Amino acid sequence: MDRAGVAVRADGIRDVQRALPEEVPVAMVYDGSTQAVMMATPMDIADFAHGFAFTEGAVTALDQIEGFELAEHPAGIEARLWLRPDRRDAIAARRRYMAGPVGCGLCGIDSLEEAVRPLPHVGGDLRLAHAEIAGATDRLRDCQPLHDKTRATHAAGFLRPGEGMVMAREDVGRHNALDKLIGALLRQGIDPAGGAIVMSSRLSVELLQKCAVAGCPMLIAVSAPTAHAVRLAEGAGITLAVCAQGDGFVLYTHLQRVVPEVSDVA
Amino acid sequence: MDRAGVAVRADGIRDVQRALPEEVPVAMVYDGSTQAVMMATPMDIADFAHGFAFTEGAVTALDQIEGFELAEHPAGIEARLWLRPDRRDAIAARRRYMAGPVGCGLCGIDSLEEAVRPLPHVGGDLRLAHAEIAGATDRLRDCQPLHDKTRATHAAGFLRPGEGMVMAREDVGRHNALDKLIGALLRQGIDPAGGAIVMSSRLSVELLQKCAVAGCPMLIAVSAPTAHAVRLAEGAGITLAVCAQGDGFVLYTHLQRVVPEVSDVA
Repeated sequence: MDRAGVAVRADGIRDVQRALPEEVPVAMVYDGSTQAVMMATPMDIADFAHGFAFTEGAVTALDQIEGFELAEHPAGIEARLWLRPDRRDAIAARRRYMAGPVGCGLCGIDSLEEAVRPLPHVGGDLRLAHAEIAGATDRLRDCQPLHDKTRATHAAGFLRPGEGMVMAREDVGRHNALDKLIGALLRQGIDPAGGAIVMSSRLSVELLQKCAVAGCPMLIAVSAPTAHAVRLAEGAGITLAVCAQGDGFVLYTHLQRVVPEVSDVA
Repeated sequence: MDRAGVAVRADGIRDVQRALPEEVPVAMVYDGSTQAVMMATPMDIADFAHGFAFTEGAVTALDQIEGFELAEHPAGIEARLWLRPDRRDAIAARRRYMAGPVGCGLCGIDSLEEAVRPLPHVGGDLRLAHAEIAGATDRLRDCQPLHDKTRATHAAGFLRPGEGMVMAREDVGRHNALDKLIGALLRQGIDPAGGAIVMSSRLSVELLQKCAVAGCPMLIAVSAPTAHAVRLAEGAGITLAVCAQGDGFVLYTHLQRVVPEVSDVA
């Protein structure tokens, strides 16, 4: 959306127009009950809803979503999902658990342990070459039309060996961008095990968790991981690389997936 | 925390050490029940807990928190708050509301409207000079020792007319940094109405909401606001400025608080 502003600079004051990214409430509604409401950029919301349902554990495969529709309202967007009966029961049980006083009623230890959910181990034979990783965030920059206009959005991309950045999604929020990407991959039948996820952001625990749930063996970002994200990546078998633009990269975990030359990639 | 990595650059491969920011689960526990668990940098957690309770509406003044303690566990940190009985009852009622199927049971419209909470109007006679705003994010950079070490954390600072950056707080998450700052201001008896909040990040709706609840009349950031944040700022009476480093700033709303010279500041 274009928006009027006033630029104040050393050489004077003048009216300007700036393209700003939109952000609207998106409700994830499972079988008629709202599971979560998030602020998101209103693009690729079907990908977002499918990705979020998958990475947050409502479903373990997209065919457990039996119905889907989007409803736009003045107040935001509803993503309505109808789940397979067994998943519906599992979510209702989790909701009952969350509804009561969480934990033992005297403290929050149970909920702290709940926060660090056990992650699946990611294996597979992915290999990426030095040059592919070194150029990953620049390739992602080539796939950010919304960021080109607004300078204020994040992106998540999927990089396959020898093929480059095959898909990317944008959002004001980095977690949303990743959920959109994972949703898009799964909906198009692309296995996240076959490439690396590239993020325009820092690497925090939640991004690492979503990546592990999706079974993606490598995560490349423009900015540093947290210490906790590195420990989780180590345990989950995920290769973490941080790609300072134009000057190579730093690897933190599972170096075996990184090979010198593109020709070494199987 | 220092962490070993391998740097891959054009001029060779070598072992490196990188200081990475920590991130741990922090449970906000009100009267023995967990209200929320967030991943946060384990610094200034008392400020964080007080700020979060205030900006998320559990309390409307810090004297409604009758008891406070921190408990460290292997799985994370518990911030235990004991609230005044009337606030405790209000939260229990909200929790019962959240526990049921939210909305009419057929859709998520109610929860979408719930997401865009009405904001208080922020008034006051704050004035800041061009040069103070233009230099705000550089002044914030001078108060980010954790970022200097890790290059991967956000900060929120408080800028007072004629005094510069009087306080700053850091965290891997920008919302947490802001809650820490607001908590610190309130705990030290500094009125957020008397200055501008400066963020190292983009400006999304949630930051704007927290700023309005705290009664702070100006928000300055390094990167663009979302369109929705601008609309909310307009309605809430908050001045929004975006400060591209070293090259002036752009004002989006409520220009009356910005004056040419420091001497014009009352």
